[in-house]
Formats: sequence, structure tokens, C-alpha cells
Amino acid sequence: MSDTPQFLRIPSSVMEAEFKRILVKYGFTEEKAVACAHIYTINSLEGVYTHGVNRFTKFIKYVIDGHIKPDKEPVCIHRAGAIEQWNGQLGPGPLNALICTDRAIEIANEQGMGCVAIAHTNHWMRGGTYGWRAAKKGCAFIGWTNTIKNMPAWGGIDAKLGNNPLVIAVPYQDEAIVLDMAMSQFSYGALDLHVLKNQKLPVPGGYDKNGLLTTDPAAIRDSERTLPIGYWKGSGLSLLLDVLAAMLSGGFPVVDVSKQNVENNLSQVFIAIHLSKLKNSTSIPALLQHIIDDYHQSISDKNSNVLYPGERVLAVREENSKQGIPVIEKVWNDIMAL
Amino acid sequence: MSDTPQFLRIPSSVMEAEFKRILVKYGFTEEKAVACAHIYTINSLEGVYTHGVNRFTKFIKYVIDGHIKPDKEPVCIHRAGAIEQWNGQLGPGPLNALICTDRAIEIANEQGMGCVAIAHTNHWMRGGTYGWRAAKKGCAFIGWTNTIKNMPAWGGIDAKLGNNPLVIAVPYQDEAIVLDMAMSQFSYGALDLHVLKNQKLPVPGGYDKNGLLTTDPAAIRDSERTLPIGYWKGSGLSLLLDVLAAMLSGGFPVVDVSKQNVENNLSQVFIAIHLSKLKNSTSIPALLQHIIDDYHQSISDKNSNVLYPGERVLAVREENSKQGIPVIEKVWNDIMAL
Repeated sequence: MSDTPQFLRIPSSVMEAEFKRILVKYGFTEEKAVACAHIYTINSLEGVYTHGVNRFTKFIKYVIDGHIKPDKEPVCIHRAGAIEQWNGQLGPGPLNALICTDRAIEIANEQGMGCVAIAHTNHWMRGGTYGWRAAKKGCAFIGWTNTIKNMPAWGGIDAKLGNNPLVIAVPYQDEAIVLDMAMSQFSYGALDLHVLKNQKLPVPGGYDKNGLLTTDPAAIRDSERTLPIGYWKGSGLSLLLDVLAAMLSGGFPVVDVSKQNVENNLSQVFIAIHLSKLKNSTSIPALLQHIIDDYHQSISDKNSNVLYPGERVLAVREENSKQGIPVIEKVWNDIMAL
Repeated sequence: MSDTPQFLRIPSSVMEAEFKRILVKYGFTEEKAVACAHIYTINSLEGVYTHGVNRFTKFIKYVIDGHIKPDKEPVCIHRAGAIEQWNGQLGPGPLNALICTDRAIEIANEQGMGCVAIAHTNHWMRGGTYGWRAAKKGCAFIGWTNTIKNMPAWGGIDAKLGNNPLVIAVPYQDEAIVLDMAMSQFSYGALDLHVLKNQKLPVPGGYDKNGLLTTDPAAIRDSERTLPIGYWKGSGLSLLLDVLAAMLSGGFPVVDVSKQNVENNLSQVFIAIHLSKLKNSTSIPALLQHIIDDYHQSISDKNSNVLYPGERVLAVREENSKQGIPVIEKVWNDIMAL
């Protein structure tokens, strides 16, 4: 018996059709099923399997258990100029996030900049989804979400903070530069994957039970002491992102999300800036090319090329488009059984 | 002969008066001298000596050399709803930043949220200054600046990125929670200080000439390979903050700042959100107290208490108010000779 999981290659059109079929079966309207299936498929096609195909069964379980409500839609409860506050009503996280992104872009089209803060929503899956979307519509984008508690604050040993992913995106050529980063150095998903592959982490990712920094993923899983990026810095940034998300949306902070049995009632922020409204709008593409050209001239260390955030996505998308999306056989079988 | 620098304790009123005297002597109007002296004094009073008293002589040298122009003021060149683009005209960085902060707050008072992006400005000294200011006026604040190149991108060995400090602040009780963090794990100033004190860094701060991560500050200074916070993550965040600062202001990115002989022509962004405009404005203080109370209940590791960003400032401010601001004797003598 092999420990190595067996992979299938599923064409994206097949995956998308199956996702849609299942979503309709579990109460999504045709229109919502199409939109949601598309997000899960693109996330997978672009290599973010943890928040694509690998997460789909859990998503459906949340629907079955009533934590995600497919018949609910987000509603605007307050507007103050360029800011709107929305209530997500526990609707599907990716659909709520899509609506908030599009609304922030609409406000930015009127006001230069728009902000939508949403309370009581669900996991948005891959934050980069919304960065790519805004960038493709000519906007710079800054967005973030809070999460359930999963990381100690700097100087603490018990988890008080979420890893609160932050997304920043700008249009670049016909694509985008998209930073999509959680505040922990490694997610629990990444720790699990390294354990599965019997690999050490490339850099220290947390503490062992003796309070020593370690690259041993199992030791960190046991201690539950994941490491914030930049130690005290990522700890502070995580706290402030949570404070802002809860404050601006009027929703739950990490401490209250964590009092529940499940990770929902999240708070998220979506900020879009319409670049066409700026005085220098026509020179922005050349400016960005100038920055990236210089960046790409970095003298590389021996192990890796110097890529901008999101650059790797292009090659993964191309490979998976040609060869099909790689899916662990068991994951696909579980989905087909839904 | 001792290697340990001798410290004086200078009352803040004395320091502020001396700063003002010197600023007037070097071409600042009375009003600008008062405002600028106040910023340098408060930064020192609150323990940020590197961007307070220790930097004052260099600031005056930049004025003498014409890199900072005390007679210039920032001008608004474009408005699009909630965003304004300003030209700093190489005026004094702290005064330009103060004006941008106040203008972002004004826009936020009209529009819920306001953004001012400024091109062609100078070093703002301590970014936290503007976070504290906005928070004291009832605003959440997000701001950042680019810098001269001083950090390699992840996977590179030559500096292509700035450390591009990011500030996030919110009002808290009668004070503020203020995160003020550069994208490098340690500044060159911090490396110098550890060398001076013959101390190792508390965590790895960069690479030595053999490409190995190290806590030896001198080895990092020699290799010039400082480490981004969170490795690839801080590298990506630094790039995006520079891209946004240059894009939104129409000013110089890090690559162009770095082509000059001096660090000026910087690009900065100031975003304020007026909390009074939100539907939940009256419940925000209780929400924040709830978050901080839980945060403070973190089980501490043996070496440190768990503090929120900016919490330490309160004690330093109190001590320095009572005992005077600690200043290295040579630093003070150099200032008094101006």
C-alpha cells in the first residue's frame, strides 16, 4: 500500500459541470450554482486546490448542516458616501464576496474609491478571486477577511488571533498582480501537506511544545503554536485586520467567531480604487511595467527565480487547462458521491 | 574608554524649543517650525528616537543641501470623489504628511472614507505619528510610504525593494492602537544598534555572505541581504505597497527613488475612515474593548507579556515625561551646534 495519494486529471469543464450539478441538488438556484461552480473551478484550475476542489465537499457539508444558507443574499444596511455596510445573512461566502467586490467597484466608479464591509458572511475560499476580479475591471483592490482563531499573538502560547488573509491586487498587462497572504507563516493545511509528504518546512513555521522554533510540521500541529509572519509584526497586523473588519462591518471579531462550533459569521472588507479616475491613469501601465522589469532583473539566488505575486498562477493555469486539473482520487470520488 | 554611549535626559519642552529655534534658523516659518519641532519631540518622547531626536541633524542637513525645501507646501493636483492626488513639492516630509492626514480626515468626514496620495514628498519620519493623529480625531487609518531600495525580493540577493512602512491605527479608549511596521524584519538602524551593543538579533534578520539565515547583525550589514517579514510574504507586500503608492500618487516608485543620490521624491498614501459615519459607531468602543480584553488574556510565554501595537508607547511616554527624554550625549551636542 502506498502512502502517496493517487491523482486524476479532471478537465475544468467536467469539474465545473459536476460542481454545478451538486450545488443545484443542495438548494442553489441555477444562477448561483453557475457562479459558485465557476469560482471553485477557477481556484482549482489556478492551483489553489485547498480553496477549490479540495474544499468542495466541506462546503456542501456546511450547506447541509445549515451553516451556509444558499437561499440568502447579502443586503446593504447602511451607506456613508464611499463606504457601505452589508449583512451577509450567512449566504455562500464566495457569492457574497463576489457581490461585495462588484459593489465596491461600482462605488469606485462613482467616487474614485469604494469600500464594502460585510458582516455575517461565510468563508470566501481564495481571497485572490476577488483581487483578480477587481483588477480585470481596472481597479486596484485591497481586501481582507477574519477567520476562526488559529494563531497565538506574539508573546502568547494560546491561539487568540485568526490568520486573517489580506489581498492586494492591481491590473497588469492583460492579467493582474495579486498578493493573497495569510498572517500565519503556514496554514494548518500546509502543515498537514508537509507531514503527508514527510517533509520539513522550508523555514521555521512555529514552536514545538518546548517553545523552540521549529521546521517540523508535526511538532507545530501538536503544540498549536503557529508563527505569525515576521513574528511580532504579523501578530500586530492580524489583530488590526480583525479589528478593522469587525469595526467597519459591525460584525463578529475573531473572538466571537471562535465561540461558535463552526467558522461562519465572518467579517470582510473590500476596497476598490478605479484607476481610470486618476489624473495619471494613462501612464499607469507603463509605470507598472517599469517596476516589474526592474524587479525581474533581481539577481536570483541559486534555488529560485524572482516572481511577482500571482506570476506562478499563469503557468499553472496553462498546464491545468491543457492536462486537466490534478485531483486526489479520493477527493474526486467523495465529490462524485455527493 | 567606554564603548557605551553616555545618555543625557532632556526635558521635552527644552528639546522642542531647541528644535524650533534651529528650524527657524534654517528657513522654516515660525508656524512650520512649531509643527515640525512638535513632531520630532513627540516621536522622541514616545521612544521612537530613530525617527525623532537621532534623526534631527540629518533632517537639517537635507534642508541645507536643498533636498528638503522648507518653503514648499503640498498642492492638490486632482480630485476624484473620495480620492485626491497631491504633489509634495519636496516640502518637509512630516509637515506634508500631516497635511495629507488632515485632508484624508476631512474627505472622510464628507464621504465616510478619504484617500490622499502624495508624490514628490520627503521621509515622514515615524509613520505612527499620522496613525495616532487620525485615531485621535475618530478615524481608522491606513497609510504607507515607499523608501529607497534596502531589501532584496524573496529569491533575490540584490536590494530591489524598499522596506515601505505600513501604518494601521484605530481609536482606543482615549488613546489609540497603532501598528507601525516596516516590511523588513529589522531596519539597518536596528542592525547598527545590535552591533553597537554586541548583541545577536532575537530572530533571524537576514542572510550572511554564504546565503545562510543568521542572527548576526554585522553579517547581514555586510551582505546587505535583509530579510522581508514572513520571507516571500513580506517581499510581496512590499512590492504591492510600492506599486500602489506610485500608482495612486503618480509619483516615483522605489526603483526611481533609488536612482537618486538621496532618499526623497517619495510616494505616500493616507486613507482615513470616519467611524462616526458608520451605522454601528456608538458600539465600536465596546467592540474594541471586547477584542482587547480577550487579547490581553493570552497565556504569556515566559519572556514577555502580550501587548497590542502601540501599548508600550504609553509607559515610555510617561517615563520620558517625568525623567526627560534620553539622548546620546554626542547626538545632543551635534544638535546644539546647529
